[in-house]
Amino acid sequence: MRMRKKKWAEPYLEEHRDYAYDNPVEYKGKWKESLNCDVLHLELGMGKGDYLNTMAQMYPQEGFVGVERDTSAAAVAAKKALTAEPLDIHNKRMIVGDAANILDWFEAGEVDVLHLNFSDPWPKTYTHKRRLSSQKFLELYRQILSKDGCVRMKTDNKGLFEDSVLYFLQDGWMLKEFSVDYRRNAHPEDAVTEYEQRFLDLGQPIYQLMAVPMPKVVE
Amino acid sequence: MRMRKKKWAEPYLEEHRDYAYDNPVEYKGKWKESLNCDVLHLELGMGKGDYLNTMAQMYPQEGFVGVERDTSAAAVAAKKALTAEPLDIHNKRMIVGDAANILDWFEAGEVDVLHLNFSDPWPKTYTHKRRLSSQKFLELYRQILSKDGCVRMKTDNKGLFEDSVLYFLQDGWMLKEFSVDYRRNAHPEDAVTEYEQRFLDLGQPIYQLMAVPMPKVVE
Repeated sequence: MRMRKKKWAEPYLEEHRDYAYDNPVEYKGKWKESLNCDVLHLELGMGKGDYLNTMAQMYPQEGFVGVERDTSAAAVAAKKALTAEPLDIHNKRMIVGDAANILDWFEAGEVDVLHLNFSDPWPKTYTHKRRLSSQKFLELYRQILSKDGCVRMKTDNKGLFEDSVLYFLQDGWMLKEFSVDYRRNAHPEDAVTEYEQRFLDLGQPIYQLMAVPMPKVVE
Repeated sequence: MRMRKKKWAEPYLEEHRDYAYDNPVEYKGKWKESLNCDVLHLELGMGKGDYLNTMAQMYPQEGFVGVERDTSAAAVAAKKALTAEPLDIHNKRMIVGDAANILDWFEAGEVDVLHLNFSDPWPKTYTHKRRLSSQKFLELYRQILSKDGCVRMKTDNKGLFEDSVLYFLQDGWMLKEFSVDYRRNAHPEDAVTEYEQRFLDLGQPIYQLMAVPMPKVVE
């Protein structure tokens, strides 16, 4: 979900580094303490932040961190969070940066639920390695997920979903949930973003899975 | 796919026991020899036989056995095969019986490709154990599949597909192919039946997977 470059984005983010962190290595291992929570959610590719903002409101006892590398989208997300009335950012923060760096920001076992919502499908074969569900990323997720941690993925993109199911399985993950039309049940526990609603309005299915890493067998 | 009971069905099948076998224990271990083939396909729940008949024609060097327990459907399938012009049943046979008995009919490792096409979804929870992709059946399939053997499944039913993916994974199978809209690519190598065409005409997706059993780890 690319957006037009906004000139005000970078200055805005610079002004609000206490919410939209830049390379927050000092929080590594301390997110739950810092957000005063027992359950930590991490959304990679948070876009304009609708999901993160809504979920943080729905689950005030849990902590939410969103990562976005596109500064224009990140600035919109930050502005939405910081101009909401009443202001309530007690359980959420953002990181403006590349998800490939998550090991710099999160300690082993620190994340309980890792969300991939409508990630860029990178449809061309030579770009598949950039997908947030490709093997290189799954190896990183294994490291930061807690013992009972999981990845939750939703997408409207058939090719991305089909390939991702195989990526997870080939990397030794187990699917615990799996749906080819997730919103035919309402799932009120899981926020619908405006972006997702557009697909629902068109009658298009949302594909969903929840996966957990299995121990790797050394042969 | 239940059909109205046909009075002529049972007498017709009795007359053609040399094509539509009843409990063919004598062929166990001898199907490939009998059909003069190196690759044996087995379709469970063949219904009126459109898939089996077309595939047997498309792959004259390979062998095809279809199982159907509903005598009315089985009689239609047998009649289609036996009244076709020119008559050509050199590489196909039917078994009129319950798929739960496949171990009586097939030797360990005898089947190369096991097809489940638009199987009865048994939507009510207390009937799920009757599904041809439920664990009890997967355990049987493991036994009759050859070393490189696989199960190929297609369905229009969301709930059956979603549950089946989890059945396969929980029973330690690996998905090698997986599609949420199989016919958006034509797949000319795989016959489209009239039944399937109805869904395609309605713009409904066909869900598909190919799974192989992984060695069971004894803990």
